Amino acid sequence: MTVSLGSLRADRPDIYVTGCPSRVVLDHVTSKWGVLVLAALAGGTLRWGELRREVDGISEKMLASTLRTFEADGLVQRTAYPEVPPRVDYRLTPLGRDLVEAMTPLITWVAAHAEEIVSG
Amino acid sequence: MTVSLGSLRADRPDIYVTGCPSRVVLDHVTSKWGVLVLAALAGGTLRWGELRREVDGISEKMLASTLRTFEADGLVQRTAYPEVPPRVDYRLTPLGRDLVEAMTPLITWVAAHAEEIVSG
Repeated sequence: MTVSLGSLRADRPDIYVTGCPSRVVLDHVTSKWGVLVLAALAGGTLRWGELRREVDGISEKMLASTLRTFEADGLVQRTAYPEVPPRVDYRLTPLGRDLVEAMTPLITWVAAHAEEIVSG
Repeated sequence: MTVSLGSLRADRPDIYVTGCPSRVVLDHVTSKWGVLVLAALAGGTLRWGELRREVDGISEKMLASTLRTFEADGLVQRTAYPEVPPRVDYRLTPLGRDLVEAMTPLITWVAAHAEEIVSG
């Protein structure tokens, strides 16, 4: 899908208004850790400890809260296996995969331009 | 550019590591207000007061800090005109326009799916 820059503002006034659904969801997916957690899960199903190692610097509390938000949003599916010790894993739902697909150009752009921006 | 989901993690390990340039820039552009300020400027040059009205709920302090970060990153250009009363406006640089272009699929996705996610 192609959206021109000029039309972004006119077509999507809702993202600017506090409390509108678009703004709420945008806050979730662009939270400090949200993008990183979603991108980590793009590689496939991960267990809690794997996610923590993958997303360097995230606290237990912040990872738990980010995952709870994404579960409630229907973006991440949590599966608990009745094993000893208990095993829990996390994967993207089809909706979550779709979101990561939409996020990929941004992540790719940031990776490509970060050096230039930080050193500039 | 097409990037498969599976390759996202393998190709971009840097975005996950604290202090790496990609992570720093990702934090800037996905800050609570960063996306909204950039998207607002996608429509064209705006003055301070116009930006504040556009991005509903942003405080003076947060708008100032967000704009300073983007100026330092080379994403936003600030121009002060020697008039009385003083006039200052803000516009995207070519690099900033390029970033917003990369961000557009995400914003479009969020606008399209927000109702479903929030009510789900």
